[in-house]
Amino acid sequence: MCYWVLRRRRNIIRLQIIMAAAAEIKMHGFKFTMNDVTARLHISKTSLYGYFPSKSALVAAVIKMVQEDVQRQEEDIYNDSERSIEDKFQAVMSVSPALVGPSSDSIYYDLQTTYPEQWRNVENFRQQRLDRLIALLEKGVSSRKIKPINFSVLKQLVFFSMNDLFDHTFLVENNMTYYDAVVSLSKILTRGFIEEKDI
Amino acid sequence: MCYWVLRRRRNIIRLQIIMAAAAEIKMHGFKFTMNDVTARLHISKTSLYGYFPSKSALVAAVIKMVQEDVQRQEEDIYNDSERSIEDKFQAVMSVSPALVGPSSDSIYYDLQTTYPEQWRNVENFRQQRLDRLIALLEKGVSSRKIKPINFSVLKQLVFFSMNDLFDHTFLVENNMTYYDAVVSLSKILTRGFIEEKDI
Repeated sequence: MCYWVLRRRRNIIRLQIIMAAAAEIKMHGFKFTMNDVTARLHISKTSLYGYFPSKSALVAAVIKMVQEDVQRQEEDIYNDSERSIEDKFQAVMSVSPALVGPSSDSIYYDLQTTYPEQWRNVENFRQQRLDRLIALLEKGVSSRKIKPINFSVLKQLVFFSMNDLFDHTFLVENNMTYYDAVVSLSKILTRGFIEEKDI
Repeated sequence: MCYWVLRRRRNIIRLQIIMAAAAEIKMHGFKFTMNDVTARLHISKTSLYGYFPSKSALVAAVIKMVQEDVQRQEEDIYNDSERSIEDKFQAVMSVSPALVGPSSDSIYYDLQTTYPEQWRNVENFRQQRLDRLIALLEKGVSSRKIKPINFSVLKQLVFFSMNDLFDHTFLVENNMTYYDAVVSLSKILTRGFIEEKDI
């Protein structure tokens, strides 16, 4: 086979490994083993280590792919000049990485205890996302699209909303998807629950 | 001394003991000792045990007094026919017991590990307060004062807001009182952050 075909094949297998690891993380957290990944893909351990020298390198690759995906989705939202601030806010709030779906609190805690270095990386990433979203809203104040609310309070509220608010139990009990819950939440935050006429 | 004077004096000392215990809990959590309380009040241990047979009886009395205080404040708010639903919501959100001030997450965790029975009692109490507040809003939907939002989502949001959102670090960093933060939050939840005209 020529070089390009080989390289393409290598990229496909690399992607399959990352997807298998992501599926393991989603199901069992970060305590999955390299054997779990090889079993899923029916490949040898030698072959796996040919792509990722260690489990931590594999975990890093999963996180990198998740972050690139989220970043790409958000880039599209922020750059879409057709969208209002309200629309952008709602869209950013409901972004979730295709690879692993909405994050859960327990996964973060698991990451913090097993790969603290990666956890710090993820924390920074979340903080940057939050800062960008709040900056979008703050910019809307001067053009009178956004009320001059207390942005520290809103930031705290959005941070908790993005992370802790809708766990699996809540969604099952209320028969909602994560997306439903976040859309409902965004509606409350953007427009409030008091009927406008009742001023 | 006659019976009534004695009884009144007893009630005053009892109240002083409860206040001293509340101050200890606020400063050091539930690991305070009966000695801490006697030292604060310059009374003997025999005298203290004459009022409360055990530390857990004293803790129960503090919690009961806090709950009665909160209940009384909320009763006044709910029964005030001058107040709109919006006003009632904001007032209920910012109720905090005079004896101990706004609750913190760490105090709840401390209670859960040291007095699980009392913690369950407090949990039920919080749930009842939340249910009552959400019921007030739900009732406003039929009279078109409140939007038909998703109340499970709002309930979750209010629960977190009342408990986890504004810890000591947040308040100090943002140079706000708990009351400031809750009022800002209530404004966002009731009216949203989008300027009305921008529909």
